[in-house]
Amino acid sequence: MQYTFSDKCKNMKPSAIREIFKSLTDPSVISFAAGNPSPLSFPVEKMQICADKIFESDASKAFQYGITEGYPVLREQVKARLAERFDSYKEATDEVIITTGGQQGIDLCAKALLNEGDTVICENPSFIGALNAFRSYNAHLVGVDLEEDGMDINALEAALKANPRTKLIYVIPTFQNPAGITTSLTKRKAILALAEKYNCVILEDNPYGELRFRGENVPTIKSLDKDGRVLYCSSFSKILSAGMRIGFISGGKELVQKIVVLKQVNDVHTNQFFQMVASKFIEKFGLDDHIAFIRDLYRAKCDLMLSELDKYVAPKASFTRPDGGLFIWVTVKGGDGDAIAKKCLANKLAVVTGTSFNPVQGGASPSVRLNYSTPSDEQIVEGVKRLAEAL
Amino acid sequence: MQYTFSDKCKNMKPSAIREIFKSLTDPSVISFAAGNPSPLSFPVEKMQICADKIFESDASKAFQYGITEGYPVLREQVKARLAERFDSYKEATDEVIITTGGQQGIDLCAKALLNEGDTVICENPSFIGALNAFRSYNAHLVGVDLEEDGMDINALEAALKANPRTKLIYVIPTFQNPAGITTSLTKRKAILALAEKYNCVILEDNPYGELRFRGENVPTIKSLDKDGRVLYCSSFSKILSAGMRIGFISGGKELVQKIVVLKQVNDVHTNQFFQMVASKFIEKFGLDDHIAFIRDLYRAKCDLMLSELDKYVAPKASFTRPDGGLFIWVTVKGGDGDAIAKKCLANKLAVVTGTSFNPVQGGASPSVRLNYSTPSDEQIVEGVKRLAEAL
Repeated sequence: MQYTFSDKCKNMKPSAIREIFKSLTDPSVISFAAGNPSPLSFPVEKMQICADKIFESDASKAFQYGITEGYPVLREQVKARLAERFDSYKEATDEVIITTGGQQGIDLCAKALLNEGDTVICENPSFIGALNAFRSYNAHLVGVDLEEDGMDINALEAALKANPRTKLIYVIPTFQNPAGITTSLTKRKAILALAEKYNCVILEDNPYGELRFRGENVPTIKSLDKDGRVLYCSSFSKILSAGMRIGFISGGKELVQKIVVLKQVNDVHTNQFFQMVASKFIEKFGLDDHIAFIRDLYRAKCDLMLSELDKYVAPKASFTRPDGGLFIWVTVKGGDGDAIAKKCLANKLAVVTGTSFNPVQGGASPSVRLNYSTPSDEQIVEGVKRLAEAL
Repeated sequence: MQYTFSDKCKNMKPSAIREIFKSLTDPSVISFAAGNPSPLSFPVEKMQICADKIFESDASKAFQYGITEGYPVLREQVKARLAERFDSYKEATDEVIITTGGQQGIDLCAKALLNEGDTVICENPSFIGALNAFRSYNAHLVGVDLEEDGMDINALEAALKANPRTKLIYVIPTFQNPAGITTSLTKRKAILALAEKYNCVILEDNPYGELRFRGENVPTIKSLDKDGRVLYCSSFSKILSAGMRIGFISGGKELVQKIVVLKQVNDVHTNQFFQMVASKFIEKFGLDDHIAFIRDLYRAKCDLMLSELDKYVAPKASFTRPDGGLFIWVTVKGGDGDAIAKKCLANKLAVVTGTSFNPVQGGASPSVRLNYSTPSDEQIVEGVKRLAEAL
C-alpha cells in the first residue's frame, strides 16, 4: 500500500543524532556525540531502596492507571522545588504537571499553540529534539543567532517584526544545548519584554538548570514573568534517570490545563511506578546531595576537556566555557561543521556537526558539539587529541 | 495573558470519564464506571523478582536513554507473540515498536496520517480515548452503528462514499470498548475489503484480545491483510500493568517508521526500566499462566454480573454478553443514557452514559456502559440492584 502521510509530518526524518548512535558500534571510536548523562549520575542503589518500598506497600497503586496530571505527591514536591530554587511556580496563577520526559512537555506545548505555518523563533543553534517537535506540526522555524550572553536581541526583534505569525519563542537560557552558553539576566529581561510587545508565549526549557558547577545562578525567565507568558519545562533525566522518562512543566493554569487534555489523549499519564520512585527518593534522600555529586563529576570532566582543548585546539578553534550542563561548542572561523565532523569520524572521534542544530534545515554552521558527561577521562584526553589532528 | 490555542485543540475538553473518577470520592458510591483492570490482574510479586534482576545486573542500561523503537529484546518477544497468537506480525513486511501505552499508538497513527478536516470512521459507540485523540488533530469523525456482530457494513460503505477524505477506519473488533461486542469474521473481511476499495488505512485496536474467557478466537483483521493496510495496536495494560504504560504497534514498515520519527519528538522512548521488566517477565514466567488466571477472574465476574442482570434488569433493558474484555453495554429501547446515568448516580451507582462514546459530540444514546473488572463480587450484586431500581 502507498501511504498518504499528513502534510505536517511527511517531510520528517529521524533525528540525525539518534541515528548516529545506532551506527556507533565500532569500539575504537570515541564518542563526544552523545547527549546522555553519565551512568555515574544514576543513584541506582537509592532508587532500588525506593522501588522496594513501593513494591512492598503501594504496588497496586503503582501498577494501576493514574491521573493525567501526575502522581499528586510528586507534583507537590516539584512545585516546592520550582518555587524555592527557581521561583518558577506561583500557587495563585500556575499549575504543574508531570510529563513523559521534558520532550513531551515541548511537544504538547507546540500542539496546544501552533497551527501549521505559525512561526517559532529559536536560538541558532538549538536543541534538535525541540526543533523536530515544532517541525512535526509544520511550524515555520526562524533562528536567531546566539551570542556569548544569549540571543542577539536586535535580531530577535527583527525576526518578530518579520514574522507576525510568531506564536512561540523557544529558549534554553541556562547551559544551552548545544552551545553551553548561559543567557545573561539583561537578555532574559529583553526576551521577555519582546515577547510581551509582540504577544507570544516563551517556552523556557531548563533541563540542565540543576547542574551549575561554576558561577552564580541567573534568575529563570519564568521567575520574571508576571502574566503567564512563560511555560517552563524541565525533567529528572539529568539528575535521577533519563530512561525513566519523567519531566514536568509549570505555567499559567489555562495553558497547562489545555496541555493536560492533550496528554490525556497522548499517553494517558506518565509511568506511575517511577513517578512514585522519584517521589520516594525526594522524600527519603532529598535531591541536593545527589545533585552536588553530579556537579562535582561534571565540573571535573568539563575542566579536563577545557584544559585539553586549551592545550591542543586553542590556536585552531574557539570554544565555549560552560558553567554547567553537558556541552562545549567548538567553532572554527570560516569552517564547515559537516566537514569537521566527517574528518573527526575518519580519525575515530564522533562529534555532532553544528548544522544539525540549525533551525533552518540545510543551513550552514562553522561549529561542532562536544559532550563531556559520557566519555571517560582517558577518552576525553585522547578524543581531544583526535579532534586537534582533524582540525 | 490571553492564550491563542491552536485550531486543532481549542475545543478539546477533558475526557468525561476521567473527570468522573476525580469526583468519585464518596465511598458509598459503587462504581461500574471504570475502564481499569482488576488490581488482582497485576502479578506484583513476579514483577518484583524481574525488577530486582534488572537493578542487580542491568541498571545502568535501564536508567539511560534507550532507542525510540523500544528495548530490542522486548520487541522480539512482542513480534513472536503477535506472530504466533494473532498472526499480526509478518517479518517480511511488518515492523513492531514499543509505545507508551496503547494510547500513544493511536495518537501517533492519527498524527502520521491526518490533516485537519480528514475523516475518521469509527464504530458507534467507540473508545473515548481514541475519539479524543482524533479530535485533537481536528479530524472529522463519522460513526457507524455497531450491530451484534460488528459495524453495519452497508452504513460503513455509505459513510465511505459520503466522505471522500476518509483516511482511517478505527475499529476495536474484539470485546469492543464500550459495547463488549466481537466483530464476526465475515464482517472483518467486509471491513478490510471496503478499506481496500476506498483506499484507507484500518487502525485495529486490540487491547483486550488476550482476555477471551469464552468461545473461539476470531482472526484479527491484521492477519487478513496482505498489503500493509492495517495498523495493529495493543498493550500490556490489561495483562501486566496499566500504570507502567507499555504498548506496541505492528504494521507496514514505512508507516511504522514514520510513527517512530513522531515518537522520537513526542517522548524519545518508552520507560526503559519497565520495558526490561516486561521482557524479563516474558522470559522468566511467560505470559500464558498469568493470562489464564485473569481470564478465569473476569469470566467469573462477567458471569456474576450477567446473572444478576438476568434476574433484575432483563425485562427493562437489553445487554450484551461478552466473550472477553471488561465491559457490558446496557440498552433501554427508547431510553436516554444521560438520564439513566444520572438516576444511577442519585442511587449511588456510577455508570458511564453512552453519549460519551458517540463519535458525534452531542449525539444521543439509549445505553450505558458497565464495567465488571473493578468492582468486588458484593459490589456487582448490590450495584445491579441499584441499576434495576434506577431503571
